[in-house]
Amino acid sequence: MRALNFTGEQLVFRSDYPVPRPRAGEALIRVLMAGICNTDLEILRGYQDFRGVPGHEFVGVVEEIPDAETRRTHSHLLGQRIVGDINAACYQSHCDYCQRGMHTHCPRRTTLGIVDRDGAFADYLCLPVENLFLVPEGVSDEEAVFVEPLAANFEMLEQLHLKPTASVLVLGDGKQGQLAARVLALNGCEVCIVGKHPEKLALAAEVGAVPYLLEQSETFQLPEGRRVDAVVECTGNAQGLELALKLVRPRGTLLLKSTVADKSTINLAPIIIDEILVQGSRCGPFAPTLRVLGQKRIDVQPLISACYALEDGLEAFEYAAQKGVLKVLLKVS
Amino acid sequence: MRALNFTGEQLVFRSDYPVPRPRAGEALIRVLMAGICNTDLEILRGYQDFRGVPGHEFVGVVEEIPDAETRRTHSHLLGQRIVGDINAACYQSHCDYCQRGMHTHCPRRTTLGIVDRDGAFADYLCLPVENLFLVPEGVSDEEAVFVEPLAANFEMLEQLHLKPTASVLVLGDGKQGQLAARVLALNGCEVCIVGKHPEKLALAAEVGAVPYLLEQSETFQLPEGRRVDAVVECTGNAQGLELALKLVRPRGTLLLKSTVADKSTINLAPIIIDEILVQGSRCGPFAPTLRVLGQKRIDVQPLISACYALEDGLEAFEYAAQKGVLKVLLKVS
Ligand SMILES: [Zn+2]
Ligand SMILES: [Zn+2]
Repeated sequence: MRALNFTGEQLVFRSDYPVPRPRAGEALIRVLMAGICNTDLEILRGYQDFRGVPGHEFVGVVEEIPDAETRRTHSHLLGQRIVGDINAACYQSHCDYCQRGMHTHCPRRTTLGIVDRDGAFADYLCLPVENLFLVPEGVSDEEAVFVEPLAANFEMLEQLHLKPTASVLVLGDGKQGQLAARVLALNGCEVCIVGKHPEKLALAAEVGAVPYLLEQSETFQLPEGRRVDAVVECTGNAQGLELALKLVRPRGTLLLKSTVADKSTINLAPIIIDEILVQGSRCGPFAPTLRVLGQKRIDVQPLISACYALEDGLEAFEYAAQKGVLKVLLKVS
Repeated sequence: MRALNFTGEQLVFRSDYPVPRPRAGEALIRVLMAGICNTDLEILRGYQDFRGVPGHEFVGVVEEIPDAETRRTHSHLLGQRIVGDINAACYQSHCDYCQRGMHTHCPRRTTLGIVDRDGAFADYLCLPVENLFLVPEGVSDEEAVFVEPLAANFEMLEQLHLKPTASVLVLGDGKQGQLAARVLALNGCEVCIVGKHPEKLALAAEVGAVPYLLEQSETFQLPEGRRVDAVVECTGNAQGLELALKLVRPRGTLLLKSTVADKSTINLAPIIIDEILVQGSRCGPFAPTLRVLGQKRIDVQPLISACYALEDGLEAFEYAAQKGVLKVLLKVS
């Protein structure tokens, strides 16, 4: 099959990559469309020491469920358009995490296109049937590709009670910040967004976020030195984290969505002095995300910068790495 | 009056230090006994750029309330033995924090012996009457000096729901770790303590904490690689914080009690990958602390390493800074 293959040194396009074989409990999925995420760009820089086919944001069609028992219980999936949770857990009865419904933290999990499992930048991929969610008719392929990154933002609402009366600041106006601003605004929160790109801030302003241009991270303040109830850190750098700690009020909440680059040098004393609650947040729930997309409550179309054919994947990656670019999609079939 | 005075360069004993003058709403308090805290040792190294009389753990007697209106409303305090919350807030009706009961976060607060207010290593100190709590008869001076640092540990129970079925690990067997282990064990939690000092671990084991000797921070593990529901970081160093993130389970809680030295170099990615909840925690509630001490539920006596006269304060500080020493008290009057 066709695939983008990261060799550990470079990303190459191959037309003879072996089709993955579903294990017991898994389905073979034909990929329709996939999205390039910052994690994919980091994988090309050595993140997670991954080798193989990257890609974890996708929509596809269930082609086969070879294992007879699983096919019997999940035949309704065959031929259907689906999205998939990227954490393939062990789902064993002796696994504490799986038994407690924490499959995204199963210590034996593999992760699509990130850890020990080939991903979505290819004609086919495999995932456990438990991970698959039917995509409603009214949700387009372009929208469905956003389910995974949007779900990761719904995770914040799953973890913490963000009150409708809360003031929330999104720090960073890139892909992650754009999605966070859209999800956090759903329940009536007062959302503002702080970033370095006027055109990206304008995109967030269109959905009601109050934009603030960040010129100097060291001296930036909200008007009148105001501090907010919650800050979502979406810059992924140490400067952003330090600024976030200045902008959140005492006893406020700091949500960490972007992995701050390894071994950052940061003054963490404000967390204790201001008694900040810091919540790390990763993958999230697909079902509410599909409901909200089906109800057209979030419009992802303005966040798409370009769509390439799978064959032009290397070019797509180059474009996705450029400043100012938001989501780049790959049309696979 | 007599006082230990930190000049910015050194700590000196003075017998001619001016007696502080209570402002409106404040009482003049004669100090009976005071405790040396790690924060005091850090002040001598330049922390908070403090000049004046350090000391914030104390028990005293209310000598005067000069302001007539305050004396009328708080006459029951005169001549009584009290302990005092160290954060002197503005208590103004236009202050968001004071109005919401968050006086320990009032942006105009001074802090006894730490920020803009002379402290307890002296014959007299001043605090707002709102900050004072009567000490029950059954609580000795030695016990009362522990109210402030114990309250800082009760703050954890105030901030988070620590379930009786939770497994909690205290990282660090010094003063802070000892108090944390005692407070966290109150509701039935399974508590273990990890530290470098066999004799200190033994002290915690006496109150039911399971002790583990820490030899190599990089390679330390609990038996069978177990991870716990919550870790309380009491080492105040970057290595401790990194170890804490390895010992807490995915979606577990990390409580930060000790300010990690400025600008630490730390890999924070595990907070996001394991979706850890990090709670910074500082000063805490005095009332429950006094109840628990009055009910003899926590015995602080074994944590006292020595008691010096105020005149021997410099010697007391030298002793308190030595390895292996727990709480050092100053008997003032
Ligand atoms: Zn599992
Ligand atoms: Zn105030």
